Parts: sequence; C-alpha cells; structure tokens
Amino acid sequence: MVKADTPGYDELTRVYTRLYRYAHISAIIGWDRNAMMPPKGNEARAAAEAELSALIHRTRTDPRLAAWISAAEQEPLDDLARANLREIRRDWRAANALPESLVEAKTLAGARCEHAWRSQRPANDWKGFLENFRPVVKLAREEAKLLADDSGLAPYDALMDRFEPGVRAADIDRIFGRIKTWLPQLIAAARDAQARETAVVPQGPFPVAAQRALNREVMTLLGFDFGAGRLDESAHPFSGGVPEDLRLTTRYSEDDFARSLLGTIHETGHASYEQNLPRDWLDQPVGNARSFGIHESQSLSFEMQLARSRPFVGLLAPLLRKHFGDQEAFEPDNLHRLWTRVKPGFIRVDADEVTYPAHVILRYEIERPLVEGLIEAEDIPALWDEKMQALLGLDTRGNYRDGCLQDVHWTEGAFGYFPSYTLGAMYAAQWFAALRRQLPDLDAGIAAGKLEPVFGWMREHIWSQASLWETPELVRRASGEALNPQYFREHLERRYLRR
Amino acid sequence: MVKADTPGYDELTRVYTRLYRYAHISAIIGWDRNAMMPPKGNEARAAAEAELSALIHRTRTDPRLAAWISAAEQEPLDDLARANLREIRRDWRAANALPESLVEAKTLAGARCEHAWRSQRPANDWKGFLENFRPVVKLAREEAKLLADDSGLAPYDALMDRFEPGVRAADIDRIFGRIKTWLPQLIAAARDAQARETAVVPQGPFPVAAQRALNREVMTLLGFDFGAGRLDESAHPFSGGVPEDLRLTTRYSEDDFARSLLGTIHETGHASYEQNLPRDWLDQPVGNARSFGIHESQSLSFEMQLARSRPFVGLLAPLLRKHFGDQEAFEPDNLHRLWTRVKPGFIRVDADEVTYPAHVILRYEIERPLVEGLIEAEDIPALWDEKMQALLGLDTRGNYRDGCLQDVHWTEGAFGYFPSYTLGAMYAAQWFAALRRQLPDLDAGIAAGKLEPVFGWMREHIWSQASLWETPELVRRASGEALNPQYFREHLERRYLRR
Repeated sequence: MVKADTPGYDELTRVYTRLYRYAHISAIIGWDRNAMMPPKGNEARAAAEAELSALIHRTRTDPRLAAWISAAEQEPLDDLARANLREIRRDWRAANALPESLVEAKTLAGARCEHAWRSQRPANDWKGFLENFRPVVKLAREEAKLLADDSGLAPYDALMDRFEPGVRAADIDRIFGRIKTWLPQLIAAARDAQARETAVVPQGPFPVAAQRALNREVMTLLGFDFGAGRLDESAHPFSGGVPEDLRLTTRYSEDDFARSLLGTIHETGHASYEQNLPRDWLDQPVGNARSFGIHESQSLSFEMQLARSRPFVGLLAPLLRKHFGDQEAFEPDNLHRLWTRVKPGFIRVDADEVTYPAHVILRYEIERPLVEGLIEAEDIPALWDEKMQALLGLDTRGNYRDGCLQDVHWTEGAFGYFPSYTLGAMYAAQWFAALRRQLPDLDAGIAAGKLEPVFGWMREHIWSQASLWETPELVRRASGEALNPQYFREHLERRYLRR
Repeated sequence: MVKADTPGYDELTRVYTRLYRYAHISAIIGWDRNAMMPPKGNEARAAAEAELSALIHRTRTDPRLAAWISAAEQEPLDDLARANLREIRRDWRAANALPESLVEAKTLAGARCEHAWRSQRPANDWKGFLENFRPVVKLAREEAKLLADDSGLAPYDALMDRFEPGVRAADIDRIFGRIKTWLPQLIAAARDAQARETAVVPQGPFPVAAQRALNREVMTLLGFDFGAGRLDESAHPFSGGVPEDLRLTTRYSEDDFARSLLGTIHETGHASYEQNLPRDWLDQPVGNARSFGIHESQSLSFEMQLARSRPFVGLLAPLLRKHFGDQEAFEPDNLHRLWTRVKPGFIRVDADEVTYPAHVILRYEIERPLVEGLIEAEDIPALWDEKMQALLGLDTRGNYRDGCLQDVHWTEGAFGYFPSYTLGAMYAAQWFAALRRQLPDLDAGIAAGKLEPVFGWMREHIWSQASLWETPELVRRASGEALNPQYFREHLERRYLRR
C-alpha cells in the first residue's frame, strides 16, 4: 500500500479536471475558427491555438503523472474510479508514447501534405501528392511501431486502438471478410429491385431561412436541447463544442434541402450522445464518449436507422410542406424511395448505406498493408482501381481526384480510422435489432411520433455508460452479444430487398 | 552590467508573447459567452474561464519576473524596447501589487453584489443593495491603499492610474472644476436654442435584416475591415475580440434604428483603434491601446465628432433611404436636429454629449471621497440627489433605480474608471481641433465622403503610437499641447449654440 501522503488518484482527477477545462476552451475556440472567424484572424489564432495545445501537451506529459498513476493503481477504488483510472492511463499512454520530435514531424508533414492536397486533388496530381505523402507514410510507420512497442499490440492494431479501444485487425478481417461474401450480390439485388421504381425529385429553390427553421424543428423533434447547443454554418459541417454546449454546423444549398437536413440529423445523433453523457462524470476521462465507432453508431442510428426509415419519413413530410409549401415529391413513399436509393459511386462521403462499406473495406485493405510496410504509397492507385472494380464495378483508372485522392484522412496521417465508420453502421443495426426485440411495435410508435423509446434505449445502454466499459463489453451489455454483422445484413435486406 | 546568461528582456518578451496568446483565447471565449453561448453552457464555461484566468494570473505573477525586469532595466535597449519594458513593469506591478486573497475576496464580493443588484435595481431596493455594497467598498479601500503603497501615489490616483496612466485626481479636479463653471449655463442655452426647433421622428418598423445591412455598410464606410472582424448581437453591446479579429456586438429594436446605428458607430471607433495598432508590436504590452480614456476618444471621435456632425449626417441620409425606404424624417437637417437633442435625464448611458459630463462629474465627486474614507456608502443617495439637482436640475429623491443604482461599475468594485468617459470626450474634441487647424476644409471633405484625412490623422497620431508614450505625452505629441478642456467647450458651443 502507498502512504496516504503520496499523490495518487485524487491528484490525478484534479489534473484531468484541469485538462477537461482546457479542452473546453480548445473546443470552443476551434468551433469559432471554423464557423465564425474572419480570414485575417487566422495567423494570430493559429499562434494562440498552438500555445494552448502546447499547454495541454505539457500537462498530459507532466513527468509526475506516471508515479501518480502507479500509486493510484494500489489504492482501493470503486468500480467507477477504477474505470476512470483505466481511461486516464489510456490517455496518458497516448500522450506519452511518442517523442515530441515525432509528433512535431508528423504535424508538419501532415499539414504540408494536406495544404498541397487542396490544390493537387482538383488538379488530379497524384505524382505531386506522392512527394508529400511519402514522408507522411514513413512517419505513420514509425508512430505505429512506437505505439506497438508501448502497448504490445501489432502496429496497425495500435493505430486503430486509439479510435476503437479493444477492437483488433483480426476482428475487422473476420467481419469485413464476411461482409464481402454478401455485399456485391446485395448491391446488385437492391439495384435490381429499384430499377422498376420511379421517384419525383423535389423542386427548389429552398430558401436558406426555411431550411434553417426546418433543421431546427427536426433537431428539436430528435431531442436536441437548444438551451445547451447551437446550429450554425461552416464550409465543412461538423459537430463540435462540449457536452454542456454542443456546436453543430451545416451548409446550405438552395437547390437541395435534403443534404443539409440529413447531414444535420446525422450530426444530431453525435450531439445527442454528447448531450446525454452522465453530468457527474463529465470532467473525467470516464465521462467521455466511448469511441469513434460507438459515436458513429449514434449518428447512423439517427440518420440511417431512424430518419431514412419509412415511419420517420412520414413524420418529416408534413414539416417539409410546412416550411417549403406543398409538392408532390413530399409524398412520404416518394421521399423514402429517394432517400434509400442505391447507386455505386466514386465518392465515399456521397455513398448510400449499402455501398458505403465497400468504400471502407477498400481503404482498410490498403492502409493496413501500407502501415505494415507490405506495400508502398506508389502501389495505392493500382490497388484502388482493382478493388473499386471488384467491389462496386467502377473504373477509376487515372481518376485520382475521385479515387485515392478524395479523402483527407491519409493526407493528414490518420491511419486506422476508416473501419470505425462501418463498425458504427453495424453497431447501429445491432442496437435497433435489440430495440425491436424489446419493442416489437417500434415502427408503429415512430410513425406516431413516439421517439422517446429510441432515446430511452440509447440513454440507458449507450449514453449513460460513457467510457465505463471498453467497447466490446459495452456492446455485449447493450445488445446481449458481441458485434455481429448479421444485424447489419438483415437491416439492409429488409430495407432494400423487401420493398 | 548583468551577465549575458541572466534572463532579462528577451525572456520577458517571450513570457508576454505567451500572455498575449492566452489573452487572445480569453477574448474570443468571452465574446462567445456574451454573443453565442446557450444558457446551459454557463456553468462549465465559468469553470473553464476561471481555469484560464488562473493560468494567466500564475504567468503574470511568476516569481522570476521581478529579477528579469530588474536585469532588463540594466540592458542597453532601444526606445521601443524601453517603452515596452515600462509597460511590462506596469502590467507586472498591476498583477503583483495585490495579494491573491484580496483579489479573490474582491471578485467574490463584486460578483455577489452584482448578482443581487440585477434584481435590486428594478425593485428600487437601496437598503438590500447596501448590505452587499459595504464589503465592496471596504475591499476597494484596501485595494487603493495597497496600490498606493506600491506606487507612491495617493489612493484614488492609484486606482485611476490603472485606467488612465499618468493622469491624477489633481488634474481631474482642475478640469472638472472648470467644466462646472460653464456647463449648467451651456445646457440651459442649448435647450433654449432648441426650444424653437421641431423635428420629425422616423417611423418604424425598421426590419432587423435592414438594420444589420445598414450597420455593416456604415462600418465599411468608417474603414472597418470585415476580413478581420465581425458584427453580431448581444444583450449588452460591446467591442471584444483581438486586434487581428475584432468582435463588435449590437442590439436591435425594430422601433428605432438610430440607437443601434449610433452605438455601432461608437464601437467602430474602438475597433478602428484596435485594427490599426502596429502589427509588429501586437504581441507585446507596448502594442496595446494606450488607455481607457484614449480608447473612448476614438469611439467618441467616430460617434460625436464625426457621425452626429451635419456633414456626416448628410452622408448617412441616402443610406437610410436605401435600407428603409424614403421618409421625410431622413432629411439631413432633421436627422441632425434629432441626433443633437439636449435633454437632461436620469440615466448616464442615455445622456447626450452636453449633459454627459454632469453624470461623470457627479460620480467622480462621490467615488473619490468614498474611496478615501471621507464619506460612507449610506451617504451616497443624499449626495446623488444634491448633485443631480445642482448639475441637471433633476429630483431623484427615493428613485434609486434611476439614480445611484443605475451603473454596474461600483457594484463590481470598479472605482476610478468614470473620469475616463469625459476625458475621452475632451481628447476627441482636442483631436478634431488639431485636425481642423491642419485641414481647414475638413467639414467640406466629410460632406463629400472624404473620410481618409480623419483616419489618416488618427493613424499617424493615435493608432500607430499604441503604448509608446504615457498618456500626457501622447496627447502633447498628437495635438501640440496638454489636455485642454477649452476645445470640448468650443465644440459644444459651436454645435449647440450656433445652430
């Protein structure tokens, strides 16, 4: 046992409360940069944000923390404190595993690559991109190796563990391998079923003020608390801020309201998770949302499971008429057909939920060997073409712009993130399957505007649990079993094959 | 001479650059709280802001600074560095003169008094207010004594020096004493001259969107750079942000556009000062705006000297017609009559420029003996009544709400600030007198929309000088002489007696 006067758990919680407050400031300042800041504010802001990041880094790498963590591990702690200590250790490890020189080199190489990519992508300039991308890959491999040495995981697992704690490449191989056995046929069958359908496209213009009012009304319907958050506009929509003060952004085009509406619903899913995290834990790591995949399960529960379902579309139709006037296209069956169209395309972020996993599998199958050193950056286009052909039947040869240059993730050196998107889709399907077992009348309820059972289930099983459990345990407790991609398959088959 | 390896001036500039960046974050976060934050964000935000304030305080009170300042004072520095060191010492002294326990007690007492005041003022509850106000006064006296001991100034001078460096109560006595010899007669004569005037009041509603567009157009006309700033809305309008990213706010009422327009012009004066401070000095104390009084001289130059002048009103009239449609009331002579109406009233913030000094003199003549212990808090209402009667001929007996309970300044323990308002008005009149000596055609130029000479003069004499000189020296260099209230008198006589 440690002596009572050795700093331990209590001291750690004080440091992490301070870090929580710094993170609050950082989140609001970051939102401001994206949603509010005029262009000439950029230089001074960058210096101010770098100063804040340095402060946060110094706090997380305070050399005394290691001893305090060890001391805390000898203390008699309750389950909540023990879970918090596990998350503190995870955060401490993430902050301390990499030497500062590598972090700086990574930031610099990523920023340089990303900056040039902004013009190289529209110019379809793969050769030019490669110049800046090679150092990014080299540093990502070093990072993976150091994280692997530190954690005892394989290099790609170590990268992925930052986004999806406890999920391993072996799990992903098994799950994605299974998806690949049925996905191409499912896409073909869905397209076949839809080939006979017609749908009327809503006619704009849809004034921005009306779209804004519609989005706010739908967010309120979905439980968003405007007393503790905002909806604004930015070039790249995101969900920012802090749990006590959520900052969502969207982007409006007067030709098309659906993109902003469905995007806002997606972000509202993320926001609901944050707004409903347990208040009392918020200032400690155990109060954080669990992972990127679980977070995505919330946005996709709201967007895919809920909002694009026929019962929910029936709730939306009168709101569209209210804000935009009546149109034939607002007939619920028609809207539902429009919003569940399956069409293989080049661009991941524009993909429907059926073809989306193909985009993720492709990226996983490239980034993993890339990080492991089994392939090189110059091998990417050929692999990309081959896999797009196999999975979606599309030819991207020579079209880097809409191919391997389309995402910002690799550009910035973020490897191990992509699987979270499809994990999120599968978790969401698994949540709704559990919810339907408990409430066989769920769809009738949704059609009647009764959404509280959905929120109640999420609150009980996901939101209130924060980071109390590691991901696999959270999944088991919430749904009664480990992640099972069969639910996602059944969801897609029910929605797309039995219409 | 100090050894080369002793930290001195260079080390100090690094600390102050860091403080500048923290202040950037603090300013944007504060703007966000007032202009953007939803109500439920308040508690977490208060904790985050307190953490940041504590960090800034720790940095400014780092025990090593005293030695570094002493070492720097032995270094061979150029004039700019020497002025910067003077300002660093001023900031260091302000941060270190008071023990932390007193700062905390003051903050607590001020917050408690201010919080209760929000409901006590509408309830006209002087007795209740007094309970919380007595400790505020007690702590302000302690503060004044400690600042006086530290600086060698008299107690009230020491308080005022934080707002108007180098200006002393003896100066204020002399100046306010002189103003009192002519102000009551000038008010009476102005009212007399205006008694025969009639004016048509513009008829609303003035839609908020049109007011917003008008304000933006007028700000642009006044040189505000929207690439480096914004105009938003808040309950209590203010000018916030940082020189590289100014954040102005206003408040709209559809009945009356003039209040928001003239308020926005006032804030644009503050903003122009900040936007035109020398870029290269910004991260050091010498790059700060000089003082509260000089700052107010900019807002009043824009609002009183410029915007309410007949030539400028002639520029505004077509913009009003453009944004609100035509009205008889928009005839320039009519608008000018409306915007230069003299009417003694209870409320300082609603006062015209002729009666405004009376409100300030009254407060100065109460707060100074209060701080010096010559009167007590309970004596305020009687003194207030007596002085309102003498200066403005108004009876405020029993009306605390519109009398001594109207301002937030004393409530929060800010004594020594009020003189800055009238110093600002006098500086502004002195600047325009100097400008007219240089450019006898100034008014014709303004009437023709040529505002650059005004901005050019301010840029050369005020904006570019930042904190290079102490206030009296800045005034002498800018206008050729020390502060001379005669220019303010002449301005008022020209505008109000010779119409």
